[in-house]
Amino acid sequence: MEADLARTESELLHVVAADGDFLTEVASHLIKAGGKRVRPGFAMASAAVLDSSEAAASINVIRGGCAVELVHIGSLYHDDVMDDATTRRSVISVNARWGNQRAILAGDYLLGRASELAAGLGTEVAGLLATTITQLCDGQIQELQSQFDPDRSVDAYERSILGKTASLLGTACRIGALVNDLPRPVVESLTEFGLAYGMAFQIVDDILDLIATDEQAGKPTGNDLLEGIYTLPVIHALSDPDVGDELRSLLTPEITDIQRDRSQALVRQTTGVQVALDVAQNFANKAAITLTDLPDSPGAKALRAASDDLIARAHAPL
Amino acid sequence: MEADLARTESELLHVVAADGDFLTEVASHLIKAGGKRVRPGFAMASAAVLDSSEAAASINVIRGGCAVELVHIGSLYHDDVMDDATTRRSVISVNARWGNQRAILAGDYLLGRASELAAGLGTEVAGLLATTITQLCDGQIQELQSQFDPDRSVDAYERSILGKTASLLGTACRIGALVNDLPRPVVESLTEFGLAYGMAFQIVDDILDLIATDEQAGKPTGNDLLEGIYTLPVIHALSDPDVGDELRSLLTPEITDIQRDRSQALVRQTTGVQVALDVAQNFANKAAITLTDLPDSPGAKALRAASDDLIARAHAPL
Repeated sequence: MEADLARTESELLHVVAADGDFLTEVASHLIKAGGKRVRPGFAMASAAVLDSSEAAASINVIRGGCAVELVHIGSLYHDDVMDDATTRRSVISVNARWGNQRAILAGDYLLGRASELAAGLGTEVAGLLATTITQLCDGQIQELQSQFDPDRSVDAYERSILGKTASLLGTACRIGALVNDLPRPVVESLTEFGLAYGMAFQIVDDILDLIATDEQAGKPTGNDLLEGIYTLPVIHALSDPDVGDELRSLLTPEITDIQRDRSQALVRQTTGVQVALDVAQNFANKAAITLTDLPDSPGAKALRAASDDLIARAHAPL
Repeated sequence: MEADLARTESELLHVVAADGDFLTEVASHLIKAGGKRVRPGFAMASAAVLDSSEAAASINVIRGGCAVELVHIGSLYHDDVMDDATTRRSVISVNARWGNQRAILAGDYLLGRASELAAGLGTEVAGLLATTITQLCDGQIQELQSQFDPDRSVDAYERSILGKTASLLGTACRIGALVNDLPRPVVESLTEFGLAYGMAFQIVDDILDLIATDEQAGKPTGNDLLEGIYTLPVIHALSDPDVGDELRSLLTPEITDIQRDRSQALVRQTTGVQVALDVAQNFANKAAITLTDLPDSPGAKALRAASDDLIARAHAPL
């Protein structure tokens, strides 16, 4: 697994190399900044769920994981332009270093390279990756449309995170299974696993933004309310009879840091965080159930462990 | 041909439809603004070069043309964000109407839909379209890297326009030929036609920006010098012993409209425009030569006529 992740790193750098040194440098900037490579890891674990012992991943499985990771990284280039972000993964963001124009083009370039890799894996994988790009955009557009809307519904929230987060994780698992030509029911189960894991992952991430310190979350927290992104605990708190009205009056585009702190305190007076945790736990359970018919292989164990870690992470700051 | 273009319009709108009304509206905005659909036209003409009489294009040829057009339109969404443009094709630009964030995401969405269409046409077409996206980005990045550089070389210029313009036209022809399973030598000839046509097209476009009125060009002209994009006539004029030094002193990021007018007058005192026209004519000739082994079919005639029109267009303002 360690060796396969190292192969993933070198394949990522190999794939994004361009004719020109400058484009190569810009396109590899965030790859070099590192990352957990959750999506390539899921692709590799999924591809191996029927293998009773650990073996090196095939080059096509590595490439499938890289295709998904490059879509993710390309979307981060564009996210950072949209948010005017200055840092990403503890390094200067691409837009801050080279400007918005080059960051937009390099993001497009990464999407192109990802699609090239996928095309080499057959029409089903190519079509799947392309559809996933559209779902990612749909989820992000949904989120923008709900920005600063205190009436955002649970359905709108779930639809948005399904597109912006879960779709790419479902696709990572599905591509791993497809590339290794696993039986169709297994392909479907693994896709369901990735989607359910992705939903749980994003809900946990959103809870941590609300209640964790930067250290606990491992990244800056407390931004969602400032940016008008009202996540599951907040949506629930907004309908709470005791705090809903005050919370609604604070959640405006003019919100200050002090009002944000007060808003977080109000949310924590409600069952919002607990309700959200329960929903995350339900998705994690759903993810676990999709694995029950699979053998107790190293691949299946890795996926199960990832799902368990997620829920543990959410409980840490409580 | 008229009927096939109408089918192209309806296929474009059909393909970009999203689950949400809002994304559908944003993604179809520039399609509804119209366009000459040069790329779908080339795909259809290429697909038909061996047909002795006109017949309706197959749905796959229509889809191939739409895939290329959607890459083009998606890149325009991003171009307009990068240039902070307010209008495009006589309508308000997507970024001006809905903001940069939505314009970036909708551009990504269009690239995703284009890749989906291509995946439905086989791995070779899917891979080709993906590679073309990377070439487009490479050409645009090259152009940015040469901005305001009075020492920009002819090679750097040609490399940039090969990526930003010619690659998509070469791919349009190639996809038409591939989808209809034409013999490989014909596929290669048509690809060469599209690439050579694309080079000639961009050189003519660049000449018109320098010497034509808005009316003659059918769009706003005189912007390249202000934006620091030094095209073929300018590159030649910069090495002219009589005007080179003065021109160099005018071509800076601080250039005013008056200095731009003076620069254009200086370029016209040299052979720069004529040299560029000769180069465009050479590319047009090269394009025509690629068609010589083909039968005198309606498809081949349409391609030849497009190439002839181009050179006529460049001569109009002289």
